[in-house]
Amino acid sequence: MSALLPTITGPADLHKLSDEQLQQLTREIREELVRVLTTRPAHFASNLGVVELTLALHMTFDFSKDRLIWDTGHQVYPHKLVTGRYDRFHTIRTRGGLMGFPHPGESPYDLFMTGHAGCSVSTVSGLKAADDLMGNGDRKAVAVIGDGALPSGIVFEALNNIGGLNQDLLVVLNDNKMSICPRTGGLGQYLDQCRITGLYQGGKRQINRVLGNIPVLGEMAHSALEQVRDGLKAFFKDGMLFEEMGFRYFGPVDGHDLPGLRKILRDLKGQKGPILLHVFTNKGHGIPEAAADPVTYHTPPVFEEMGPNGTIKSFRKSSAKAYTDLISAGIHAAMAADPKVAVLTAAMCQGNKLEQVRTDFPDRFFDVGICESHAVAFAAGMAKAGMKPVVDIYSTFLQRSFDQIFQEVCLQNLPVVFAMDRAGLTGPEGPTHHGTFDVPYMRLFPNMTAMAPGDEADAVPMLNFALGHPGPIGMRYPKTNIDRVERSGEAAPIELGKAEVIDWGEDGCFVAFGTLLSTCVAAAAKLREEGLHVGVVNARFVKPLDRETILRAVETLPVVVTVEEGTIEGGFGSAVLEAANAAGLDARNVVRCGIPDRFIEHGDRGELLATLGLNADGLADAVRKHREALRPV
Amino acid sequence: MSALLPTITGPADLHKLSDEQLQQLTREIREELVRVLTTRPAHFASNLGVVELTLALHMTFDFSKDRLIWDTGHQVYPHKLVTGRYDRFHTIRTRGGLMGFPHPGESPYDLFMTGHAGCSVSTVSGLKAADDLMGNGDRKAVAVIGDGALPSGIVFEALNNIGGLNQDLLVVLNDNKMSICPRTGGLGQYLDQCRITGLYQGGKRQINRVLGNIPVLGEMAHSALEQVRDGLKAFFKDGMLFEEMGFRYFGPVDGHDLPGLRKILRDLKGQKGPILLHVFTNKGHGIPEAAADPVTYHTPPVFEEMGPNGTIKSFRKSSAKAYTDLISAGIHAAMAADPKVAVLTAAMCQGNKLEQVRTDFPDRFFDVGICESHAVAFAAGMAKAGMKPVVDIYSTFLQRSFDQIFQEVCLQNLPVVFAMDRAGLTGPEGPTHHGTFDVPYMRLFPNMTAMAPGDEADAVPMLNFALGHPGPIGMRYPKTNIDRVERSGEAAPIELGKAEVIDWGEDGCFVAFGTLLSTCVAAAAKLREEGLHVGVVNARFVKPLDRETILRAVETLPVVVTVEEGTIEGGFGSAVLEAANAAGLDARNVVRCGIPDRFIEHGDRGELLATLGLNADGLADAVRKHREALRPV
Repeated sequence: MSALLPTITGPADLHKLSDEQLQQLTREIREELVRVLTTRPAHFASNLGVVELTLALHMTFDFSKDRLIWDTGHQVYPHKLVTGRYDRFHTIRTRGGLMGFPHPGESPYDLFMTGHAGCSVSTVSGLKAADDLMGNGDRKAVAVIGDGALPSGIVFEALNNIGGLNQDLLVVLNDNKMSICPRTGGLGQYLDQCRITGLYQGGKRQINRVLGNIPVLGEMAHSALEQVRDGLKAFFKDGMLFEEMGFRYFGPVDGHDLPGLRKILRDLKGQKGPILLHVFTNKGHGIPEAAADPVTYHTPPVFEEMGPNGTIKSFRKSSAKAYTDLISAGIHAAMAADPKVAVLTAAMCQGNKLEQVRTDFPDRFFDVGICESHAVAFAAGMAKAGMKPVVDIYSTFLQRSFDQIFQEVCLQNLPVVFAMDRAGLTGPEGPTHHGTFDVPYMRLFPNMTAMAPGDEADAVPMLNFALGHPGPIGMRYPKTNIDRVERSGEAAPIELGKAEVIDWGEDGCFVAFGTLLSTCVAAAAKLREEGLHVGVVNARFVKPLDRETILRAVETLPVVVTVEEGTIEGGFGSAVLEAANAAGLDARNVVRCGIPDRFIEHGDRGELLATLGLNADGLADAVRKHREALRPV
Repeated sequence: MSALLPTITGPADLHKLSDEQLQQLTREIREELVRVLTTRPAHFASNLGVVELTLALHMTFDFSKDRLIWDTGHQVYPHKLVTGRYDRFHTIRTRGGLMGFPHPGESPYDLFMTGHAGCSVSTVSGLKAADDLMGNGDRKAVAVIGDGALPSGIVFEALNNIGGLNQDLLVVLNDNKMSICPRTGGLGQYLDQCRITGLYQGGKRQINRVLGNIPVLGEMAHSALEQVRDGLKAFFKDGMLFEEMGFRYFGPVDGHDLPGLRKILRDLKGQKGPILLHVFTNKGHGIPEAAADPVTYHTPPVFEEMGPNGTIKSFRKSSAKAYTDLISAGIHAAMAADPKVAVLTAAMCQGNKLEQVRTDFPDRFFDVGICESHAVAFAAGMAKAGMKPVVDIYSTFLQRSFDQIFQEVCLQNLPVVFAMDRAGLTGPEGPTHHGTFDVPYMRLFPNMTAMAPGDEADAVPMLNFALGHPGPIGMRYPKTNIDRVERSGEAAPIELGKAEVIDWGEDGCFVAFGTLLSTCVAAAAKLREEGLHVGVVNARFVKPLDRETILRAVETLPVVVTVEEGTIEGGFGSAVLEAANAAGLDARNVVRCGIPDRFIEHGDRGELLATLGLNADGLADAVRKHREALRPV
């Protein structure tokens, strides 16, 4: 179907196309995006929204030397398609295939692997500063950042610093009125006001008309005129926020008008000083279903059935429940039962599945936008005043709050609950989204309690335990569907620092921290077939650790395999080693299984776990290998 | 000398004073601040600047129920003096005495222990949200934040969210044109423009005069008039930045005019919605020497000699060199030798002793203000473009960059050098400033190399090693004066992942990570007197660890004491346990000495280390105790 797209081997080829052909190319790119979604879930609406912007940027600049950073990075599919990756595009988000985010290993057109929002302005500023110092000042520098990422604190830090340095640099604000959920906060209202004043050209005309209507101006000097022009620009609210930081503001312009975009980018390319171009785009543009519901179509499920003319008829529905479903339902129930419970999300209402909470308890639901640092400090304030806030943020994004977890929560010893979603390997997103570092960083600070449910049975009781706990407490849980481990009776109630013995073996035991518990049970079953009785312990807590149960295993069993879906540097297994050492125990029988000290690529979570030895075979092998090593030669 | 101050047992007593007596009180408070400085170093100029503001706030609000957060927290001395802590004030910054920052354990008037800048607006917003939800909406909420903290990203996250929530809340911007060093960035220029437009009342008059002079306004509807008023307000640049976030802006007002401050605070107290009051103060106000040089007088050395009328004649000078001196000189030398080397500081030019670098290499010196997140992402951009940036930030403040160390530096594997000053216990500041968590958090991420010099001999060679290293690399060093360990010959050159054996003992060894090395040497000397030959190893690297040397010690010596001035949860000692476990070694002979899992109070560093067993006696005891434990009963 595509005729032009396969011929684009790099941005230079774009210049060979007529305006009509470029329009056709935008359609072909969108068809290609739809095609991906017929095979697997992927970022969709955000990519549909930047097709024209991508083409305009690549036709104006030469990013083989100029600098381009796509903030957040999930909107780079069109960029990948026109920078020589069309032929591999069908592999996107699969293991070994293209990454769904920029990846310097894939192409020189990808400078930074991005995924956490808001850093593009800083990195582009750093690139520009270095280029200037190293005699490469002719290299232009562009950051493309969404309005969803804009309120993120680091963006303001960067804008302020760039304003101070007066760097020649272009920030393109891709304003689609969304983060992943509809945006919140005063800035959003401000940007809306920019929007209603009309387009760039219209705005300028209005300003000049008003200026002409004020007779008093005739008596003013030129500089005063300039000041009044500035003042009246604010009358239209256009861009003063950015101008006050030291930027010149242009826009807003229509982000789907390719010739218009190319014209203004050409105009701005030669200008000096920091420039912000406000572009408005429609998330989902070009595909009516996506444009009408950009939240659902941000990362929709696979398109199961297509209608005529490439319309989307239905999704592949899944009835399986995920941990996120359990926790959000648990939060809902807790909020219904206790008016002191509140919940915070950082623009992830949908990802955290908090829509029902938002509907039913709007006063106690806080979507702070992509402002994780603020979320945690705000929660600390709430806790100080007697509320029970739940900070519901993905493990990897909570890294943004590291210092607030330290100062505002742990140092004050306040009862803030951290629901750390997407802990462990998240799969096709890759290393920017895997939540693999939270165990070491949560157990690092005094006063913190850190937990992980072993299975479905633990999840809501653990949340409720957290809500009753008098100090800082976090629970990590994965993106996966729930599973339930077979027990001889009821699951043991959650008690501070108490593990649950699922089965006590004589030949060894697995001590699982988190939902690899069921994998341990499967591994134990394999070993049982070989005549080995290896038990399974559901650790539940890494801080405080259940020293009694776990050290009894270390003291009495020939092998104790600690299992965690997180980095083993300073993780759960290390906590076991620390406890054994403090108790004067020989811990040579402890085998630590977890994620090794390297960044884990994207791919199917099951596949990734298998390559890391974190499937049932791999865990059983860990026991077998340890027995081999002990066998006298 | 003080006559009034001793009679102030709480804010209520302030109301008993006449205007003249209040003026006298401001003088007495300043005298008291000078008195502290005749005994020990303390925060000085910032406290001098807020005397009137403190009195005005306490006379307008009732902070026994209303909410007050002092951002950054080093300017709370006057607040402490009028909230019932006059009698203990002479103990400030001593162990067991008052803390130099707000401390909830001291007084109900201190809600949060602050020290890291910028979080006050978030926490006050959280307090207010909870108060409103819990039926305490009559409680007013006030954050006082300096212009130095303002560019910190979390402040914008908070302002934006508060604007969206439309909370009844007052942010007092204490604008003294300084962070600790003179401020930088576009925002500073913006605030300066607010300043030159004159005071609050004058500004309003000007606006009204201009409005009256524009005939076209007669035809406009009221709402349009309002818009023009807003527009013209921007003509004067007053506060639009904040207004665009959803705040109403008032000011600027003179922060040393107590009656004026009380009047405007009284006016604003009853108003609805988010309000920002721009107050300008002079850092060092009332003490001419301090007002003239607020950088030096931020935390000056002890006043040795006082002139007539309480003037300050001289400081106690110290000729001792600190690690910071070595590193800053090393950075200077590296920048002189290599035009690719650049350095970044986060408003700590003075603390990092980079003044000479700033003077001699202004193009490659970047003071980003209190924007640690931006600093690291900016450095990553520079490194990507081929420069060698050194991020020179205190260990505890670098926590703000945790996520950028992850994504922008380690994930991209870029050669950014982290010079982590103030690592370990910093002394009289206390837990907000101790740098005790960096070892676990720096060794957490793949691609990172993490080091600490053992003594003076290591410091600059280690910096130079870092500058030649092709990936992310950090070195931690303390606030203390340098010392040098006696070696049989030259110090061994720095090699990746190589420890230096100072002395190999037969009866055990200390393995020191960092500058407690000399303490280990002293402990070994004590043990030698008892006939024990306990060696000393200078670990230098925690990542990668020198497995060969350290595991040889674990394998062959009866006791191996790991020593670090940092938390032992996941720290250097844990890295040794992990390595021993991976190598199949029995590590019962490893004794981990470090900072236990609690927040360490303020006080003299030596005293604090002694209480933690991290002095020579304590370390020698660790060896003795281990031998006792091994002795057969």
